[in-house]
Amino acid sequence: MTTPVTAIQSVRLDDNNDILVLLDQTLLPNEKVFLQLSTLEDIWEAIYHLKVRGAPAIGIAAAYGIYLSVKRSNAASYAELADQFRKAKQYLASSRPTAVNLFWALQRMEDRLHQEADQSVAVIKQALKEEADNIRAEDEKVCLAIGEHALSLLEPGWGLLTHCNAGTIATAKYGTALAPIYLGQERNYQFSVYADETRPLLQGARLTAWELQEAGVDVTLICDNMASIVMKEGKVQAVLVGCDRVAANGDTANKIGTSGLAVLAKHYGIPFYVCAPLSTIDQGCTSGADIPIELRSKEEISTQWYEKPMAPQGVKIYNPAFDVTDHHLITAIITEKGIAYAPFDESLSRLLQKEN
Amino acid sequence: MTTPVTAIQSVRLDDNNDILVLLDQTLLPNEKVFLQLSTLEDIWEAIYHLKVRGAPAIGIAAAYGIYLSVKRSNAASYAELADQFRKAKQYLASSRPTAVNLFWALQRMEDRLHQEADQSVAVIKQALKEEADNIRAEDEKVCLAIGEHALSLLEPGWGLLTHCNAGTIATAKYGTALAPIYLGQERNYQFSVYADETRPLLQGARLTAWELQEAGVDVTLICDNMASIVMKEGKVQAVLVGCDRVAANGDTANKIGTSGLAVLAKHYGIPFYVCAPLSTIDQGCTSGADIPIELRSKEEISTQWYEKPMAPQGVKIYNPAFDVTDHHLITAIITEKGIAYAPFDESLSRLLQKEN
Repeated sequence: MTTPVTAIQSVRLDDNNDILVLLDQTLLPNEKVFLQLSTLEDIWEAIYHLKVRGAPAIGIAAAYGIYLSVKRSNAASYAELADQFRKAKQYLASSRPTAVNLFWALQRMEDRLHQEADQSVAVIKQALKEEADNIRAEDEKVCLAIGEHALSLLEPGWGLLTHCNAGTIATAKYGTALAPIYLGQERNYQFSVYADETRPLLQGARLTAWELQEAGVDVTLICDNMASIVMKEGKVQAVLVGCDRVAANGDTANKIGTSGLAVLAKHYGIPFYVCAPLSTIDQGCTSGADIPIELRSKEEISTQWYEKPMAPQGVKIYNPAFDVTDHHLITAIITEKGIAYAPFDESLSRLLQKEN
Repeated sequence: MTTPVTAIQSVRLDDNNDILVLLDQTLLPNEKVFLQLSTLEDIWEAIYHLKVRGAPAIGIAAAYGIYLSVKRSNAASYAELADQFRKAKQYLASSRPTAVNLFWALQRMEDRLHQEADQSVAVIKQALKEEADNIRAEDEKVCLAIGEHALSLLEPGWGLLTHCNAGTIATAKYGTALAPIYLGQERNYQFSVYADETRPLLQGARLTAWELQEAGVDVTLICDNMASIVMKEGKVQAVLVGCDRVAANGDTANKIGTSGLAVLAKHYGIPFYVCAPLSTIDQGCTSGADIPIELRSKEEISTQWYEKPMAPQGVKIYNPAFDVTDHHLITAIITEKGIAYAPFDESLSRLLQKEN
């Protein structure tokens, strides 16, 4: 069976390489609208307001965004261009504090800029286009490799639970946590997938349920607080989640609610797998305590999407967008270069050093 | 400090004893509307659609509902009246399958009917009014006693987490899980309360946050999936929940998500307390496996409250309204006659046999 949904390119340049074309994820599942963005401000806003989301997709959007800003530059010299680049990089980096791919992609673009320091401005611009294209193309390969490694841990007929959206629209293609599900779908694994709706922004209901349904996968939507009962009822044989940043010791920041799922999975004896491109591993963070957690607005919980406010006016609301899952709750971290088991500090280091 | 919110009578008869006056909980926190219900059909519908909710409040509403149907009866004999009573009882009992208080209250009304078998129809009608009033008055006393017992387990300054709404509007007064919070508020305990919003119907956001805020309690609203992080961050020293039915072995059915909270509390070393009027203990259920779990409509998850659908059309949705928390995850069950600890089959039996 083919999976046409993976043909959606949620982040790409237009044919003239002038405009960033983004699938507006905030309008799904009701409307499939592609935004046409050209300014850095528009791209910052799209990242901040989650029109593009998913760590890899944010990285790709940021890479193309900085390329577009450099392309339009009138800088006459490398020094002038590099100065503009730094400002643009700093600005885009402020859009989401938790997703390390954002910084990783921007840093990779800057490294390429430095490599091309001796070249003409025109050549540098072309090199940055190439680098952003590479980030995109490599992400697709990375997701495919993660999917194959993850699939090796799963059995046909299993029930799988996932949280938030680590799917094709969160990446260049295939997704991370959803990649083995798409590969399994092609190979008739007959998975039953439970998608947490993922409050407050409902990425599971709006995005994961949508893309799995489009691909013909057997998907059932649940509220986040139903994960315990579906696990207890024996409906789930593995939990698969993506991640936004992994510390050197394996502690993992991912969408709020992930740490609770990991505790539940451990309690019910269900393996808990984190699907992590190596670009999300941040050896600069010793443990999860070093990962900053983005706090978002209270309106996301009290009013967003609703016809009427669903909380009393003025009530205090706590809205952390992510939480950190302790490494001892994680069965394995699945990367494009293989599967890491505890102790993660050693296994992740080995994978990071592995040759391509 | 006074707690004016506990003065709200969410379920009562009007002054002529002709109409059931119900606070429509589906309209909170935006509107405070009292419904005027007189027919059994209207009362059934109000229970089914959660306009009245909370196990004790449902029991009170059902008792008054059956009284009103008997009051209007033209039956000339006890036999005729008893026949009508049975039909009305069966009908009301079908409105919510999980809440044992509903059956308990209806059974208590029927027991009173049988006790009055030798009386005139007019006397029987008056006796049933008295019985419904007693159920209401006793619930208030029960909640106060639960509050005192629960408060004895808590320390000033603690952070408390609660789920769904086991508050004043779910009962005659004070609530069950919220009763110690109101008593603590009167005695300057300075609790910080975290209220899970409680998907899909948001009783935590709409009702618990509302009534605690009205009472001046320091309350912070969170999404259900944030319970893990607030526990991990050390913000919570005890979890307090209500219940809909407790099996003989202590297994407890309560709002969906409760079992997950209990697993988290155990993981983080936080005591997990169930506040349970003895009327919720069902010794006819040996364990939680005997408790039927109500499955509700998928629209509660995909469309209710929203401006636009938040899930793709036609996607499968699983919507159990309750889950069962295993007794080994429960630190104590707090009743009006005292606190039960494991082994619960013995401790609950002892409390049930205790003299008034």
